[in-house]
Amino acid sequence: MADAKNTVLFPYETLKKLSMDAFQKFGFSEKEADIIQDVLLTSDLFGIQSHGMQRMVRYHKGITNGLIKIDAKPEIVKETPISAVIDGHDGMGQLLGHKAMEMAIEKAKKSGVGIVSVRNSNHYGIAGYYAKMASDQGLIGFSCTNSEAIMVPTYARQAMLGSNPIAWTVPADPVDFFFDCSTTVVTRGKLEMYNKMGKATPDGGVPSTDAAEVLGNISRHEGGGILPLGGATEVLGGHKGYGNGMIAELFSSILSQGGTSNKCMVGGKSNICHGFMAINPEFFGDPAEIKKHFSQFLQELREAPKAQGQDRIYTHGEKEHESVAKVKAEGIPVLNGTMLEVQDLCNELGLDFKSYFGDYVPEAPATMFKGNY
Amino acid sequence: MADAKNTVLFPYETLKKLSMDAFQKFGFSEKEADIIQDVLLTSDLFGIQSHGMQRMVRYHKGITNGLIKIDAKPEIVKETPISAVIDGHDGMGQLLGHKAMEMAIEKAKKSGVGIVSVRNSNHYGIAGYYAKMASDQGLIGFSCTNSEAIMVPTYARQAMLGSNPIAWTVPADPVDFFFDCSTTVVTRGKLEMYNKMGKATPDGGVPSTDAAEVLGNISRHEGGGILPLGGATEVLGGHKGYGNGMIAELFSSILSQGGTSNKCMVGGKSNICHGFMAINPEFFGDPAEIKKHFSQFLQELREAPKAQGQDRIYTHGEKEHESVAKVKAEGIPVLNGTMLEVQDLCNELGLDFKSYFGDYVPEAPATMFKGNY
Repeated sequence: MADAKNTVLFPYETLKKLSMDAFQKFGFSEKEADIIQDVLLTSDLFGIQSHGMQRMVRYHKGITNGLIKIDAKPEIVKETPISAVIDGHDGMGQLLGHKAMEMAIEKAKKSGVGIVSVRNSNHYGIAGYYAKMASDQGLIGFSCTNSEAIMVPTYARQAMLGSNPIAWTVPADPVDFFFDCSTTVVTRGKLEMYNKMGKATPDGGVPSTDAAEVLGNISRHEGGGILPLGGATEVLGGHKGYGNGMIAELFSSILSQGGTSNKCMVGGKSNICHGFMAINPEFFGDPAEIKKHFSQFLQELREAPKAQGQDRIYTHGEKEHESVAKVKAEGIPVLNGTMLEVQDLCNELGLDFKSYFGDYVPEAPATMFKGNY
Repeated sequence: MADAKNTVLFPYETLKKLSMDAFQKFGFSEKEADIIQDVLLTSDLFGIQSHGMQRMVRYHKGITNGLIKIDAKPEIVKETPISAVIDGHDGMGQLLGHKAMEMAIEKAKKSGVGIVSVRNSNHYGIAGYYAKMASDQGLIGFSCTNSEAIMVPTYARQAMLGSNPIAWTVPADPVDFFFDCSTTVVTRGKLEMYNKMGKATPDGGVPSTDAAEVLGNISRHEGGGILPLGGATEVLGGHKGYGNGMIAELFSSILSQGGTSNKCMVGGKSNICHGFMAINPEFFGDPAEIKKHFSQFLQELREAPKAQGQDRIYTHGEKEHESVAKVKAEGIPVLNGTMLEVQDLCNELGLDFKSYFGDYVPEAPATMFKGNY
């Protein structure tokens, strides 16, 4: 997604300070702002720009238009030693996600598995952040979310499922396995980035390669959307991406009895739902031995013969791990189009843009879709 | 996969009788033969020919060459209220799978979740059969397996993962959700069928579209294989199919500390591993309400506007459900190439081919690869 011409680098600490200030201006406590900025900037550190700073302005819009309720208190509507259902009452997705995964982790430590399903939430950032909370504690982590309908099911012409990412993490050496992917060919966040860059989307990912047109169509509910992983037909497995999207619904909107993707962003509510699971390897064997066994397989994968013209096989999580060091050293790349939004946001919140970014003046591509997406 | 020219129809009861007789000739008890034939023929009833009768001869080969041990007794090496690890000691995959899923179901009924991981097994047929055992009892079902390396990870040129299917089932009206898919673009079973039909594989699924060539290469361990769902590069999500294949490894070979796909069929052992999970919706809310909520969403999907030239949107499980009625009425379609193998098998087992199939004489396409795949 790198695009040097449209991108500017800022130190992680600068963007962290801005985020802490902005989220507190939004009305969150310092502790809450810290959780939210960590989810957001972890995404940028991992090189997943589409879900980092790029999204900040959308959260502010969500708060001002009432989709996100700052003071919402999560309600546990059902709880057992291995499960819970939380009604988020339209609270901030990152805070609900963080709380739900903490519960899943506690349950997995005691009972072997914890599954928590959350309804009435909002966009929660990268699914992998929550899964990683589990693997950071030696557990297998899982998280998924539904989201505003953007995926066109096989043989439909209306978006009915969200990009519905599913993330899995597994403890491993030297780097934990970290696999976070949407069940569509591209994500909405990436579409937003292609739009800000004025670039075409990859052929085969959406019915049109014009990101601005596709985003506009989705926002105006004019049909179209993003194809499921595997494409438009069953020949190369489009029904498989569609099916994986359904599994994200199962753990998020179905078990919690919340809004399915086609009900997200309808009637002035986000209606977004999430799912979380932690599994304790101790309940299957010696966790150190299981970790060693898995790490060995990952090493064999990396050492397998390479395809022509390729010099490296990645295992999932390596790119994110290496990105953190690089981005901390070189700065977080942010699109000019995003910085234009950040500048407007600072003005609105009464924050001094120059105090963070000095004399930098953002400029966006002329083709960028600036509607309320 | 239908191919009228190369296909012949036989009544379900005829093939069931043949299977019962053959599996007992293999050395299994009547009860065992019944489990095995049900897994096999359910696949044919569901219209998944690649994993039905088509595979029978491979099981016989597995027994004669010692990969499958008829008398193996499964050993439970670890057990908790929510988990178990079984060492299959090279037993028949269908029998181990059936036993493991029964354990997962019992655990889910009592504790909310049951996860069972099996090592040292053999090919177990369609993953969905076991997941369906759970949904038949009102639970959410999950099953996955690894298998002989056939998937080339992104940027590699050697197959390192199996087709590694993952199946999920969820109770729903009027038809349970049934989603069973390999994490590759096509499966080995489908390659075998393209080979028997003398047909080209779909472009984009394998490095070559010549099924006989690809099967031959894999069997001779000469490199190449099948691409992960999403294709060869990251542009359309090849790393996602590769990642999903890794999740199948996690629940099968990693939690059980068994052989990973790249160790399958090495050193005279199958080394195949499986994973099973059952989740009890009662631990999240009223199961009838959850089922109703999910069924409503499935109905909305089916009723969504159709793509140009399409008159129906399927939800997962409908095709299989409708296939059962059709196949029971019209007969199970079997490839001539498969019947040629069945004829040889009957001769070898001392069964009278004519007593099942009358005057039918099988004939296979000239291009068919007849090696030991």
